[in-house]
Amino acid sequence: VDATNPFAAATAVRPLDGARFATTVADGWDIAGNANGGYLIALALRAVLAATGRPDVVTATAHYLAPGKPGPAEVAVDVLRTGRRFATASARLESGGRPVLALLATVGEVPAPQAAEPPLLLSGGPPDLPSPERCIARSRGFVEGGFADQVEIRLHPDDAGFVEGKPSRRAEMRGWFRLREDEPMDTVALALACDSLPPAVFGAELPVGWVPTVELTCHVRAQPAPGWLACRFATRFATGGTLEEDGEIWDSTGRLVAQSRQLALAPRG
Amino acid sequence: VDATNPFAAATAVRPLDGARFATTVADGWDIAGNANGGYLIALALRAVLAATGRPDVVTATAHYLAPGKPGPAEVAVDVLRTGRRFATASARLESGGRPVLALLATVGEVPAPQAAEPPLLLSGGPPDLPSPERCIARSRGFVEGGFADQVEIRLHPDDAGFVEGKPSRRAEMRGWFRLREDEPMDTVALALACDSLPPAVFGAELPVGWVPTVELTCHVRAQPAPGWLACRFATRFATGGTLEEDGEIWDSTGRLVAQSRQLALAPRG
Repeated sequence: VDATNPFAAATAVRPLDGARFATTVADGWDIAGNANGGYLIALALRAVLAATGRPDVVTATAHYLAPGKPGPAEVAVDVLRTGRRFATASARLESGGRPVLALLATVGEVPAPQAAEPPLLLSGGPPDLPSPERCIARSRGFVEGGFADQVEIRLHPDDAGFVEGKPSRRAEMRGWFRLREDEPMDTVALALACDSLPPAVFGAELPVGWVPTVELTCHVRAQPAPGWLACRFATRFATGGTLEEDGEIWDSTGRLVAQSRQLALAPRG
Repeated sequence: VDATNPFAAATAVRPLDGARFATTVADGWDIAGNANGGYLIALALRAVLAATGRPDVVTATAHYLAPGKPGPAEVAVDVLRTGRRFATASARLESGGRPVLALLATVGEVPAPQAAEPPLLLSGGPPDLPSPERCIARSRGFVEGGFADQVEIRLHPDDAGFVEGKPSRRAEMRGWFRLREDEPMDTVALALACDSLPPAVFGAELPVGWVPTVELTCHVRAQPAPGWLACRFATRFATGGTLEEDGEIWDSTGRLVAQSRQLALAPRG
């Protein structure tokens, strides 16, 4: 992690002792005042990787406890298991005197971009996307400023119509993702990417304004190769007051690098 | 919870103080000596529901730290947030002096079976299953005894051929689930159901023997109505040393009651 890069700098952690890390919820990673959920996961994951000495996220689940506001923060890490291949830890991000996010993560080492491993099973491939130049710049904070300035998103033109009140009528959001200044992406950046596009349900004509995340899980399959990530998010079921959003992230070599699922609040039908 | 019922009795917890609960990894819930993963989640969830005073699981994620062996166990619960609608807690199940499972759960109240709430979005429905009488009795512990005697599973005949070395060539497993003696099912039983059918990947012709679960997440949408649950599990990607298994569980009224996803180990390709 080269801390001169913007995402690395905005997610840097400093050990206070073996189990506590000082960090900062950086200014400018918010959507309407609240820090992006993927960014908050990244803060907690940096502390887990530091505490365990492992390079990569394998699977991470966050539950959101309170909105994250810019300012000093602390991550408390509890290493639960240290195995040969994986380590598992829980972590809690606190800011402003209250818990903001709880994390449970298993970390280790995932295949590098150059590792030639043919998939055992592959049902599906990257989303069909026009080139980034022919896509539309809109991030999860699709209003300008804040989070929208921190990452580079290019939405499929067919999925971006919701911004002008012309939703696609499909609960699907496809687009390209990369860090700005083309900062190299590690597996922590994949967790950020899982929560960076506008909610897929914005494509459907539902009476939803915002969709607060209750839980987000990210599974990492490989370190991403350099370049744009091709992402697809979709929601199939909005029932009983909640909805899921499933994501797939493919790297520039066409390899699946992450899957995500989140549970978010939806109005009860 | 009526503790005279077998599943309720096998998952009973007794408070030691506000944060610790005594329980038992019951005999007979094992697959080849190790307790079923969904059963272990159920133990931890009972403690979380007791500690928070909430009736239902909303979302729960477990990371598996060590095999669960029959014997006395303890669940330590840390309530992280108590809100009006939801409470969030982490929990750790320990047995034989070592941590077996780490859990992160948000609990609250989900719609009851009789609650009439039309879905806002519904892309898909229950799996197409012959009647339970025309299906095949096989549980996740598809060898006889142990876990296979604790739950009632009826697999779709098209998906059960793997037992005789004739896999369907699809990484899909569909079947019915209920507790034995038709014990009423609550949302904790849904977490059990998420891990009760044979692994979907057994339907595909892959060089996989067993598929140890790293992480399992269950999202609950509603309390199940009485009767059989219709379940579908599928794996799309076995890459980079892991595979996901996605599940949907529908109740006897045709309502989606839970979704699940787990990350399990697969041989590297």
